[in-house]
Amino acid sequence: MEWIKGGVTAPNGFLASGLRAGIKRWSRDLGLLYSKAPAAAAGIFTQNRIQAAPLRVTREHLKGGCLQAVIVNSGNANCCTGKEGLRDARRMAQRTAKELGIPGRWVGVCSTGTIGVALPMTRIEEKIPFLVADLHPKKHLEFAESILTTDKKIKEAAVHFASGARKVTIGAVCKGAGMIHPNLATMLCFITTDAAVGRRHLRPLLREIGEETFNRITVDGDMSTNDTVLLLANGLSGGPAVSSAAGRSFRQFEKALRAVMSTLAQKIVSDGEGATQVAEVTVTHARTREEALRVCRAVATSNLVKTALFGRDPNWGRIAASAGASGVNFRPEKLSIALGEVWCFRGNRPLVVKKDLREKLFKQHPVKIRVELGMGSEKASMWTCDLTDEYVRVNAHYRT
Amino acid sequence: MEWIKGGVTAPNGFLASGLRAGIKRWSRDLGLLYSKAPAAAAGIFTQNRIQAAPLRVTREHLKGGCLQAVIVNSGNANCCTGKEGLRDARRMAQRTAKELGIPGRWVGVCSTGTIGVALPMTRIEEKIPFLVADLHPKKHLEFAESILTTDKKIKEAAVHFASGARKVTIGAVCKGAGMIHPNLATMLCFITTDAAVGRRHLRPLLREIGEETFNRITVDGDMSTNDTVLLLANGLSGGPAVSSAAGRSFRQFEKALRAVMSTLAQKIVSDGEGATQVAEVTVTHARTREEALRVCRAVATSNLVKTALFGRDPNWGRIAASAGASGVNFRPEKLSIALGEVWCFRGNRPLVVKKDLREKLFKQHPVKIRVELGMGSEKASMWTCDLTDEYVRVNAHYRT
Repeated sequence: MEWIKGGVTAPNGFLASGLRAGIKRWSRDLGLLYSKAPAAAAGIFTQNRIQAAPLRVTREHLKGGCLQAVIVNSGNANCCTGKEGLRDARRMAQRTAKELGIPGRWVGVCSTGTIGVALPMTRIEEKIPFLVADLHPKKHLEFAESILTTDKKIKEAAVHFASGARKVTIGAVCKGAGMIHPNLATMLCFITTDAAVGRRHLRPLLREIGEETFNRITVDGDMSTNDTVLLLANGLSGGPAVSSAAGRSFRQFEKALRAVMSTLAQKIVSDGEGATQVAEVTVTHARTREEALRVCRAVATSNLVKTALFGRDPNWGRIAASAGASGVNFRPEKLSIALGEVWCFRGNRPLVVKKDLREKLFKQHPVKIRVELGMGSEKASMWTCDLTDEYVRVNAHYRT
Repeated sequence: MEWIKGGVTAPNGFLASGLRAGIKRWSRDLGLLYSKAPAAAAGIFTQNRIQAAPLRVTREHLKGGCLQAVIVNSGNANCCTGKEGLRDARRMAQRTAKELGIPGRWVGVCSTGTIGVALPMTRIEEKIPFLVADLHPKKHLEFAESILTTDKKIKEAAVHFASGARKVTIGAVCKGAGMIHPNLATMLCFITTDAAVGRRHLRPLLREIGEETFNRITVDGDMSTNDTVLLLANGLSGGPAVSSAAGRSFRQFEKALRAVMSTLAQKIVSDGEGATQVAEVTVTHARTREEALRVCRAVATSNLVKTALFGRDPNWGRIAASAGASGVNFRPEKLSIALGEVWCFRGNRPLVVKKDLREKLFKQHPVKIRVELGMGSEKASMWTCDLTDEYVRVNAHYRT
């Protein structure tokens, strides 16, 4: 497996485009992803009770197990917009399908941005023919740019690997800066591959890896209404079909997909709104994996832990307090906490941490926070970022 | 019932003092509260698994149902400090008791401040005789000041009411700025009364009202290791003993106590670290009270809702998203959201909100956020404050 440059158009047969439709004030806000052949497709979505209209449409279309195009807009979430919102999402798909000459049910739709405002459909519909005309196998960056909201960077990843005599490629792009939290908050991710993987295998695989990557990151503890991860496999590599989950080609594909999704998840945290520091929280020696994860989540989402990270303050006391507030039962005298390689707390007492270690600690990337519960042998990890004045600025003045 | 000036020394027979022991850099940090007669006492404490040493000592002493004094320090939480921490907390009580000439088990101990640092016991012990010598029925402000950490204001409340031919008084003081969250995070509250209420009634009453007041506020969603609310009733009003929970005098006392605790809880939110705006979140038409509370908590602790409050942005979309992420099951098309008197969202669509209402809305104090779930008839309320750049500053650079 080898990392390569590029994004969603890296695999064979994928084209993309992106342009300004005037939904946002000054950047690209409408993007199209297209596969030359219908692709086996799977998706995972937010678990929020409130789900935006495009999610409903995309879910419906995924029932057929096949997509050939995805249209995405940023600047407007098309969420909480009533029946009109649903009509607009459907129309986006239909209009795109008509222009491409494919069935409407083969088009996925995604939106991200402000909630509760109607989509400017006239502007969007006007631009769809241009989007289609612009489709190109090198325009992954235009597409990547058009899906951004408060992100500072474009986040792409691509790998290829040999499968038999053929080369198989996976490409991906994601957006997501605020509201990133377990269960995918405000994240869009599009993964393309020219591997020939049937939809029967695609969906469980995407779910499993999603659980271990995108659902293990948090920026601000909020969970969005629009999170969507879509995986399209068009089989155009010409390699053998991945027909058995036990075979070598499946394991290769799984490993590469995991690497891509894990890399993107970490990039999302690094580019979290206002973030200056990333931390990996690992909880070990828990009674159950569920409990390990619960403590992880409590530490990773604590505003006090996150501001301490920003202040470069090795405040293990706040880590202990947030673990203690997680609702998981443990004995404080069995709790140990390490920052990086340095054990700070053990046996219900602080261990002396030399001042020179402090500086060293925060030069790590990510900062490693380790919590041992001393109750069993299960563990879990999670990625988080610091809470900064920039985060507050971005979110207090989002619309102005 | 009438509100009066004053704090913990307002009721008959209570004295207080507060001075600088050098635990913090430049303000009073050691305080003493004393009753002329042993008082029936009850306490409620943090539910964090990690509990500071002084809580353990105070809990032990409360088993007797009686306290005559409470010694409090700020600047150091005496938490995660091992056996030495427990020894220090006991010594604080013993040394105070000896100086006052009362049994050690009649002294409560509280600490608040940084976690994981040993108390400077020499300085504290040196100052105890001065604290005792300084005790005075008018020194409630000195005591109030000595318990503060990042609070900007002293928070006191006092009421009196006629009970038979006598006047009964309740006085109280609290601290708490960051880490305020349901289950009492980093809050200390001392309530005194000259009512004659037996401990049998005191404890359930304190628990019940605590649940409805201090456990319904949140500043940053964290839960501290040191939260303590103590209630001391010394009976020195000379009024009749409150012997039955069904009697009129009990109901009067209950009402007054609820008013005092509710006022202080709201003051804590208003003085939350960096807070510029307070909001009352009310969730109605829930299936169960538990579910109403869960949605309340999700909305009140959402960083996106809290930054929108700071930005004076009537962003009901974030309220909908946080309610949807609460884990409580409801149907989006039955959800309604109001800000102040203005309904913003109903029937899965936004309602037009005039721009001039926006300004008006944020002049309210508190801002009223109302969420109707349309699922049943239960409800719950909670108080929260905005998340500001000042909060980040305070917490990122707490120790420097």
